[in-house]
Amino acid sequence: MYMLKYQQIAIEIEKYIEDHALKQGDKLPVLETLMTHFEVSKSTITKSLDLLEKKGVVFQVRGSGIFVRRHKRKGYISLLSNQGFKKDLEDFNITSKVIELAVRKPTIEAAENLNIGKDNDVYYVKRIRYINGQTLCFEESYYNKSIIPYLNNEIVSESIFRYIKEGLGLKIGFSDLFLHVAKLNEEEANYLGLKVGDPKFYVESIFYLNNGQSFDFSKVTYNYEQSQFFVQANSHLL
Amino acid sequence: MYMLKYQQIAIEIEKYIEDHALKQGDKLPVLETLMTHFEVSKSTITKSLDLLEKKGVVFQVRGSGIFVRRHKRKGYISLLSNQGFKKDLEDFNITSKVIELAVRKPTIEAAENLNIGKDNDVYYVKRIRYINGQTLCFEESYYNKSIIPYLNNEIVSESIFRYIKEGLGLKIGFSDLFLHVAKLNEEEANYLGLKVGDPKFYVESIFYLNNGQSFDFSKVTYNYEQSQFFVQANSHLL
Repeated sequence: MYMLKYQQIAIEIEKYIEDHALKQGDKLPVLETLMTHFEVSKSTITKSLDLLEKKGVVFQVRGSGIFVRRHKRKGYISLLSNQGFKKDLEDFNITSKVIELAVRKPTIEAAENLNIGKDNDVYYVKRIRYINGQTLCFEESYYNKSIIPYLNNEIVSESIFRYIKEGLGLKIGFSDLFLHVAKLNEEEANYLGLKVGDPKFYVESIFYLNNGQSFDFSKVTYNYEQSQFFVQANSHLL
Repeated sequence: MYMLKYQQIAIEIEKYIEDHALKQGDKLPVLETLMTHFEVSKSTITKSLDLLEKKGVVFQVRGSGIFVRRHKRKGYISLLSNQGFKKDLEDFNITSKVIELAVRKPTIEAAENLNIGKDNDVYYVKRIRYINGQTLCFEESYYNKSIIPYLNNEIVSESIFRYIKEGLGLKIGFSDLFLHVAKLNEEEANYLGLKVGDPKFYVESIFYLNNGQSFDFSKVTYNYEQSQFFVQANSHLL
């Protein structure tokens, strides 16, 4: 996938942090050293560091330096990264089972969240995802077919988002997540291998392209025994 | 509280969106119009809009303009805004009951998350928060006393974070949240007025100053019947 210079350097700095096993609060080399090391200009390295700060990888203290931000807990899934589980749970084995893939008219709820009419077509995808052989979640997604014109079993067994970005060349802009905790009903309990009335962690997500069009409305029910999440927040939200 | 010009303008633009009842996808006036309207330079208005983009209030489409980002759902609490509930749930009546406020040695867990020794003092705060007379959550917090040297009942009945920012003049940098879903134990069920074994939405948060020092470790158990959350994500996370 095409990346700008500062995005490439940001990835290399992340790799540097990983390779040197840097921990939360560890100081990065000064700007000049980073510029020399990566052979880039000051403005590029500054943009790379700003991106990493937004991503929660570093924090900058004025007049003092750039420090690593990295929590210690293992086994937590990033709530905001739809890159999926593969990136965050590298040590785990994640698989998907497609239960249904069909072109349909949207439910009222899906039409509303995708901002389309009830006569527009959507791809409906129903999957179960497994982590180390245990059920991780049960997923129902609606893709606006006028934006995602084609999906097949192979794509939806793997990463739909990778296909959207790399296969269709679309740029993802932002997403809204709505989190609920409730009790599992019979269908959900069956899919997850849990009991009716057990805790249900339920996330609705709407994903938008960078032009503001919503293309995906997803409803995901997690197995509360197999999933815990982390989120990083920056000062502008606090 | 002291704010920079672009931060003030960002607040005014938010107010403009509110006052004009702009909706998701509505276009803001062009840069030149905003510059004239708010009587600021292009670089100030650009910084204001960048801040609002980070906050999830607008999105910018290159070559096309600035658009409003605003989800339609009512009654959702912002997971990442610790401004508390007051801002997001303005229509609701939120109150707190302080159960305990004491200077203590930290638990092992608190010492680890605050990155302090077991002999350092912490303020321990235990509160129940109510929404329209119903229990919203049960909260236990540990504040590093060497950073927050003083708390009293009045402060902890109101907003501790406002006191930290305005009273102590400290700058909050970032936070890490860890989300879990489980079943309520007896103490939690009692505090929340729910049944043992009912779903438990449990959030651990670590808050850091802008110099990277952690000053607050909080454990919050929400009443799943009274709380639902939203989170906004931007492209750099997706």
